[in-house]
Amino acid sequence: GFAKVDHNRAERNGFPEVIFSMGKTPEQVASIMNTIYKHSPIVLATRATQEHYKAVQELNPEAMYHAIAGCITLGSPSTALRPYKVSIVAAGTSDIPVAEEAVVTLDAIGITTERVYDVGVAGIHRLFAHIESLRQAQVVIVIAGMEGALPSVVGGLVSCPVIAVPTSVGYGAHFQGLAPLLTMLNSCASGITVVNIDNGFGAAIAAGNICKAIHNFTD
Amino acid sequence: GFAKVDHNRAERNGFPEVIFSMGKTPEQVASIMNTIYKHSPIVLATRATQEHYKAVQELNPEAMYHAIAGCITLGSPSTALRPYKVSIVAAGTSDIPVAEEAVVTLDAIGITTERVYDVGVAGIHRLFAHIESLRQAQVVIVIAGMEGALPSVVGGLVSCPVIAVPTSVGYGAHFQGLAPLLTMLNSCASGITVVNIDNGFGAAIAAGNICKAIHNFTD
Amino acid sequence: GFAKVDHNRAERNGFPEVIFSMGKTPEQVASIMNTIYKHSPIVLATRATQEHYKAVQELNPEAMYHAIAGCITLGSPSTALRPYKVSIVAAGTSDIPVAEEAVVTLDAIGITTERVYDVGVAGIHRLFAHIESLRQAQVVIVIAGMEGALPSVVGGLVSCPVIAVPTSVGYGAHFQGLAPLLTMLNSCASGITVVNIDNGFGAAIAAGNICKAIHNFTD
Amino acid sequence: GFAKVDHNRAERNGFPEVIFSMGKTPEQVASIMNTIYKHSPIVLATRATQEHYKAVQELNPEAMYHAIAGCITLGSPSTALRPYKVSIVAAGTSDIPVAEEAVVTLDAIGITTERVYDVGVAGIHRLFAHIESLRQAQVVIVIAGMEGALPSVVGGLVSCPVIAVPTSVGYGAHFQGLAPLLTMLNSCASGITVVNIDNGFGAAIAAGNICKAIHNFTD
Amino acid sequence: GFAKVDHNRAERNGFPEVIFSMGKTPEQVASIMNTIYKHSPIVLATRATQEHYKAVQELNPEAMYHAIAGCITLGSPSTALRPYKVSIVAAGTSDIPVAEEAVVTLDAIGITTERVYDVGVAGIHRLFAHIESLRQAQVVIVIAGMEGALPSVVGGLVSCPVIAVPTSVGYGAHFQGLAPLLTMLNSCASGITVVNIDNGFGAAIAAGNICKAIHNFTD
Amino acid sequence: GFAKVDHNRAERNGFPEVIFSMGKTPEQVASIMNTIYKHSPIVLATRATQEHYKAVQELNPEAMYHAIAGCITLGSPSTALRPYKVSIVAAGTSDIPVAEEAVVTLDAIGITTERVYDVGVAGIHRLFAHIESLRQAQVVIVIAGMEGALPSVVGGLVSCPVIAVPTSVGYGAHFQGLAPLLTMLNSCASGITVVNIDNGFGAAIAAGNICKAIHNFTD
Amino acid sequence: GFAKVDHNRAERNGFPEVIFSMGKTPEQVASIMNTIYKHSPIVLATRATQEHYKAVQELNPEAMYHAIAGCITLGSPSTALRPYKVSIVAAGTSDIPVAEEAVVTLDAIGITTERVYDVGVAGIHRLFAHIESLRQAQVVIVIAGMEGALPSVVGGLVSCPVIAVPTSVGYGAHFQGLAPLLTMLNSCASGITVVNIDNGFGAAIAAGNICKAIHNFTD
Amino acid sequence: GFAKVDHNRAERNGFPEVIFSMGKTPEQVASIMNTIYKHSPIVLATRATQEHYKAVQELNPEAMYHAIAGCITLGSPSTALRPYKVSIVAAGTSDIPVAEEAVVTLDAIGITTERVYDVGVAGIHRLFAHIESLRQAQVVIVIAGMEGALPSVVGGLVSCPVIAVPTSVGYGAHFQGLAPLLTMLNSCASGITVVNIDNGFGAAIAAGNICKAIHNFTD
Ligand SMILES: Nc1ncnc2c1ncn2[C@@H]1O[C@H](COP(=O)(O)O)[C@@H](O)[C@H]1O
Ligand SMILES: Nc1ncnc2c1ncn2[C@@H]1O[C@H](COP(=O)(O)O)[C@@H](O)[C@H]1O
Ligand SMILES: Nc1ncnc2c1ncn2[C@@H]1O[C@H](COP(=O)(O)O)[C@@H](O)[C@H]1O
Ligand SMILES: Nc1ncnc2c1ncn2[C@@H]1O[C@H](COP(=O)(O)O)[C@@H](O)[C@H]1O
Ligand SMILES: [Mg+2]
Ligand SMILES: [Mg+2]
Ligand SMILES: [Mg+2]
Ligand SMILES: [Mg+2]
Ligand SMILES: [Mg+2]
Ligand SMILES: [Mg+2]
Ligand SMILES: [Mg+2]
Ligand SMILES: [Mg+2]
Repeated sequence: GFAKVDHNRAERNGFPEVIFSMGKTPEQVASIMNTIYKHSPIVLATRATQEHYKAVQELNPEAMYHAIAGCITLGSPSTALRPYKVSIVAAGTSDIPVAEEAVVTLDAIGITTERVYDVGVAGIHRLFAHIESLRQAQVVIVIAGMEGALPSVVGGLVSCPVIAVPTSVGYGAHFQGLAPLLTMLNSCASGITVVNIDNGFGAAIAAGNICKAIHNFTD
Repeated sequence: GFAKVDHNRAERNGFPEVIFSMGKTPEQVASIMNTIYKHSPIVLATRATQEHYKAVQELNPEAMYHAIAGCITLGSPSTALRPYKVSIVAAGTSDIPVAEEAVVTLDAIGITTERVYDVGVAGIHRLFAHIESLRQAQVVIVIAGMEGALPSVVGGLVSCPVIAVPTSVGYGAHFQGLAPLLTMLNSCASGITVVNIDNGFGAAIAAGNICKAIHNFTD
Repeated sequence: GFAKVDHNRAERNGFPEVIFSMGKTPEQVASIMNTIYKHSPIVLATRATQEHYKAVQELNPEAMYHAIAGCITLGSPSTALRPYKVSIVAAGTSDIPVAEEAVVTLDAIGITTERVYDVGVAGIHRLFAHIESLRQAQVVIVIAGMEGALPSVVGGLVSCPVIAVPTSVGYGAHFQGLAPLLTMLNSCASGITVVNIDNGFGAAIAAGNICKAIHNFTD
Repeated sequence: GFAKVDHNRAERNGFPEVIFSMGKTPEQVASIMNTIYKHSPIVLATRATQEHYKAVQELNPEAMYHAIAGCITLGSPSTALRPYKVSIVAAGTSDIPVAEEAVVTLDAIGITTERVYDVGVAGIHRLFAHIESLRQAQVVIVIAGMEGALPSVVGGLVSCPVIAVPTSVGYGAHFQGLAPLLTMLNSCASGITVVNIDNGFGAAIAAGNICKAIHNFTD
Repeated sequence: GFAKVDHNRAERNGFPEVIFSMGKTPEQVASIMNTIYKHSPIVLATRATQEHYKAVQELNPEAMYHAIAGCITLGSPSTALRPYKVSIVAAGTSDIPVAEEAVVTLDAIGITTERVYDVGVAGIHRLFAHIESLRQAQVVIVIAGMEGALPSVVGGLVSCPVIAVPTSVGYGAHFQGLAPLLTMLNSCASGITVVNIDNGFGAAIAAGNICKAIHNFTD
Repeated sequence: GFAKVDHNRAERNGFPEVIFSMGKTPEQVASIMNTIYKHSPIVLATRATQEHYKAVQELNPEAMYHAIAGCITLGSPSTALRPYKVSIVAAGTSDIPVAEEAVVTLDAIGITTERVYDVGVAGIHRLFAHIESLRQAQVVIVIAGMEGALPSVVGGLVSCPVIAVPTSVGYGAHFQGLAPLLTMLNSCASGITVVNIDNGFGAAIAAGNICKAIHNFTD
Repeated sequence: GFAKVDHNRAERNGFPEVIFSMGKTPEQVASIMNTIYKHSPIVLATRATQEHYKAVQELNPEAMYHAIAGCITLGSPSTALRPYKVSIVAAGTSDIPVAEEAVVTLDAIGITTERVYDVGVAGIHRLFAHIESLRQAQVVIVIAGMEGALPSVVGGLVSCPVIAVPTSVGYGAHFQGLAPLLTMLNSCASGITVVNIDNGFGAAIAAGNICKAIHNFTD
Repeated sequence: GFAKVDHNRAERNGFPEVIFSMGKTPEQVASIMNTIYKHSPIVLATRATQEHYKAVQELNPEAMYHAIAGCITLGSPSTALRPYKVSIVAAGTSDIPVAEEAVVTLDAIGITTERVYDVGVAGIHRLFAHIESLRQAQVVIVIAGMEGALPSVVGGLVSCPVIAVPTSVGYGAHFQGLAPLLTMLNSCASGITVVNIDNGFGAAIAAGNICKAIHNFTD
């Protein structure tokens, strides 16, 4: 039909093609998920609305909708990557939808997740209570809107890979996420890498790739 | 001559007109300083080079050059504001020239200063060692380049007025100070106010105005 | 629950955590206000709609809604800071919602306020009529959209701390408040500090911190 | 040769082609001025250096160099437009080169000029001393760097046409003149028109066109 | 009430305060128009909707609504300025609302107008048919969206003052009018002045000020 | 060595790899040109200085330097494409270096060129004198700095492909070529395509590809 | 009426004026299409909604609506250009509306089209399957949102003219198409030309002009 | 002295503080390197000039200067991380200095590196020759200026973590690296993370952290 599904992507990239639902009709999303589901034990659609979900559910009643994350999943992943943990740290309660997109994506990959939410730098002691737990993760994803300072603070406290996600939460000179994006790219805590504004999904895939790199090496 | 010196500014604004030397010839700076010095016990020129200083010194041998700050001063302030302390916190060693511009300006106003330098968020414990001292200041000026996260952290730890100064120290997506400027304007530590990039002078004047407000009220 | 309320913020920063309602459900705002109200005589929520207010009122019938400011308050502050006055100057009638956010926040802190509205620079004589009164304030907050020139004029006329708030009122090359933000950051009236676009709340907290600095010193 | 001089421009636009010297060799500027001088009693080159001047002077010893304005003139204009006055108001002493480019251009057109310099809004009383004189001008050109607030104040005080010129004088969030450009485009003093950053020449031509419109109508 | 109407503005600026209706309630607009109408034979409100009009009409049934221009007028101007003509040139049919805002404003000032619409540079011969008529105007206002090239072409053909108005008509790299704004500020046809994006009103006031300058001089 | 020359590019893209000399040492440029010259009858280096040329000439004394264009050529092209003509139209004399980069590149491809320089829109009649000749070209390249309006005018007058090149010639709100780039992307003369600022080389390659498309089809 | 239809545009530019429907009423679009249809065998309206279509259909029942492309056509083109093929390559399924605008425009010109959709660089092998077919086209139009890398890859593989169209498909640091626009302007595959964001129409007209250049030369 | 060296950073972050030499005097760099060298077997300074090197060498004759990378090293790392390989892929020869900064940093950490240079997308077959080798790396760093498309292509071909580094190599609408930065942030090859423009150092630290995560887990 209209879309050329990239079926050997799982082989090449380690995860099947994920559907970005924004700008697609419910029928398109349902049909693509279905096609991929024939070749893969797990399928994920992001940026999906209730309408997208309804169309998917009609074709596959076992599909699940993750409302806060705006994600649909079909099937479940293998358990091979369960020993690896990714911590998802979010600065404010408004950043939670982006954090949940990361959590659902990591769940779909089969990696263990830990949520550490509402620990922004205005009350930095809230973060300190979780440092030991963060130090046991293989990767830490740090999500922040407003001025986006949290990844710099986390990056100064842990030695594992830190992936920063700026969010569009803010107003005025925030410019829909430009402010925390620049903050994170200029972090003085070296070694922090950054993904696009609100891209919880991309951060999770990157974290997943790191866990797979550990897994493949150990094999 | 060419310039209309605003002689009653000290009366209106509490401090005589300060000369912004950039784009002025050494002779112009020397002549304006001289004119103001006739009406005021203290004169300050910012953004001044060695060449500006030489011309000033020729007319007024007692003039002093503050090389790191790029400032020239003539005379000395009254001691009325000595009981008030402004702490100047700088994130990195490259931010020191901006910090020194603030220090020299506060000295010219006659306010006590405290320097707390090289305490950026990548090693946040270095800041914690100074918290008690910061809590005894009337105002804290926080100066940072790179991602500019330091004012948010300081702002979460003290209750006095915090003035943030972004600096042009950085590269790439720093855009000559735009990154820390946006960071500071979007700070989740509420109550932080911001001045222009590299404007140590402006932060000091603002801090001075706060000290004078305390002084005037107490009077 | 979902949010980690920062209960000792009042101790550290001098005012309890304020709820930013945008992006939160009415139930979330009501529940957080309730929790904080158990530890504090006064609670404030900003950027709140009628819907937020209804949910809060259900739990706490004495809650008040400040419609123009978009704020909800619960309780009342101590009277310790009543001797201090902050003047809120607004350039145009469209800037009034931002000005009122500042007024309600200062009311919640317990500081005396004075409103001077619709005195933009296109008819500058309207401002001059209020100069004497402004000179009796401890802090002046100046709020302006369009080209944002008013703080520079006010800053040239008073010697107390001046906090400038750019607003998103304008169109075309205004870029939702970028124009007056840049104006204020570049003000030739030195000592002006700036907060984020439309951030009446932040300006009030900063003004409050200055009043507390006076209060603490005098103590 | 290399350039197609537009000889009937004086007829079409009321003033012969003016040479923009930046990026042209001294020889090119000298040769083009010479060619135009054969058809016109007055020739003007802007953005010219001492080197450009030397080459012009070799061909035409009577050429004059206006060093602060960076302009070269050859010949003199008719006296027909002497009854008209344009006032050139500049905010700071660093804005004077742009102001002088406007003055020299108006001199070349043959219009009377009045200089009102160093009257920025930080000491607005300095401007007030000149209001009566400004009200007798046919056009007022207002030149300002920093935050560029001066045209709004002038525009609120006079009823004749006001042309605003932003300058690149400033630093940090000034962005080489973007800040005052946006200020002027968003002026709440309606009827102000704006030219490019540092474009004193363009403002003078526009002012000249207004004087000619008066002259032509009266004829 | 809430607004400080600037009643002697007509005296100072030659036209009474004009109401910018965006962001004001219908009642506010109606009440302000009413107040001004007591002191002036003509009142104008711009950016007004049908709702604004209804509220105004209720208080003053003779009020008129100019739907394409989005303007309301009350009363009529003196005929003193009828001998002066301003031509309004618009590039595309989508630019007509901005052009009409200029026409209605000039009508309110009492100046004769000429409309020359849909003559964009993609078919430049359409403009050439009107050149003679344009050359008889005292001022030409040129309005263009898309790339905004029309003022440069007009400016090369007439010698009277040309005021350029960029519009937000376009898409993609147009950035809501930024593209034609920059085009007009950089016009190689010298002497063009520019107002804010979509600001037909401002261009008309500026053109009106030029006509008054002619009128006053001739007097 | 350090560079992987793409030897079959001529086969794939119809022209051998062109060396971008900026940021390369003279020795690197000389060595890469030499290597390519072994496989191709013609080699081109752009953005080359006199120093680059000297190093190339030492290895290949027959190399030629095109000073205004900043290009070095080695060898000569086949004559197969001589029947095709590309006209290069430049708005101002300062745009000539970019125009010459296009001319030298087209010469290297073996296509006939026609130069039409200094015909900017401020005196549009200068362009009209060349229309018949432009209509005989297979492609027209239009190069303009300042406001970049020329391609829109040319595009409205010819029916062949028009390629627009914005240049960095301008100042202030020109932003080093951003102004004419946006102008050209928004041209209302449909069918104009655009290349990067100052990229005369890219426009010539694109024009060359069009001529080859004609040549290949006719074959 | 309100619009000055440019009837000899077909003669000058090779295709009649195309109606840009955005911002026009259904009646305006219907009436302009009707007027042009009297002089031309084919008429095209772009950016048209179902409402526009209904009004057109009422006047001309044979009108056709191309829903995905948002275009209306009336009549059919001559067959003279059928031998020429333009390939339209689109990176993602969300870019298809822009691609279809190009296809419908080329159909209206009478040129053969080939669609190659959903072949973005994340699975570049999907493109490779079509290379032979692309190499037989006279022009390739490449349409991409997200990072916009596809034109660089296509440009490295074919030697015919390549026209790149950035789309607004993306989020966050995509800035509504700015990201792929910059990508395409900076392409290292030389000879790529670019049109405005989402401007499938413009790319098609440019491709059509190239085909006509082939056709005219061969004649 | 002036700097507060963060001695337990190696413990917290896994690598000692690295000196950013830009804006520091040679003496400052030499003294800080010396201080750190007392606590660590390896010290690294980036963005260092020959002058910085001379001062370091005077204190520590065994110091090494890596000229292309602009780095100084003192000492050598442990061999624990030698089994891990990071591939550094660079698009053009002008991107090599950034690539070498990454290589020297990884050498200092003690990780094996592989260089794959000059394989930009304009000749994508050059990359394909290295795919097997890239697939054996634990991490791939991809460095590109111009349009920055290379990481998207690499990301579509490998499954290990990919870190993208935009460079400032380009001109015009490149905006000193903004173009490839946006490209990389919007990559449709999911899982790519990005660091600041020209930040080879940061990419290397991030890659090192991934290798350490593998190493620690396997332990
Ligand atoms: N470093 C500085 N940054 C910003 N403004 C300054 C600085 N130094 C002096 N000023 C202000 O610049 C103005 C001087 O402008 P001018 O008339 O050009 O000398 C004075 O009003 C000072 O308050
Ligand atoms: N109007 C406002 N503008 C900016 N910050 C605010 C505003 N109202 C509340 N805040 C701050 O926002 C933070 C609440 O963030 P959250 O955890 O998302 O509820 C608190 O630290 C408040 O100080
Ligand atoms: N003036 C120029 N502008 C843009 N690209 C160019 C220019 N000259 C050469 N190029 C391209 O730049 C690439 C050379 O990159 P490099 O590997 O750094 O030498 C080649 O693919 C050329 O096609
Ligand atoms: N989708 C489109 N994008 C850009 N320009 C268009 C589009 N459709 C039509 N046009 C052009 O827009 C112009 C119509 O402008 P107007 O006078 O406002 O109807 C014509 O010159 C068309 O060539
Ligand atoms: Mg919170
Ligand atoms: Mg340090
Ligand atoms: Mg008002
Ligand atoms: Mg001054
Ligand atoms: Mg039209
Ligand atoms: Mg010329
Ligand atoms: Mg797809
Ligand atoms: Mg190469």
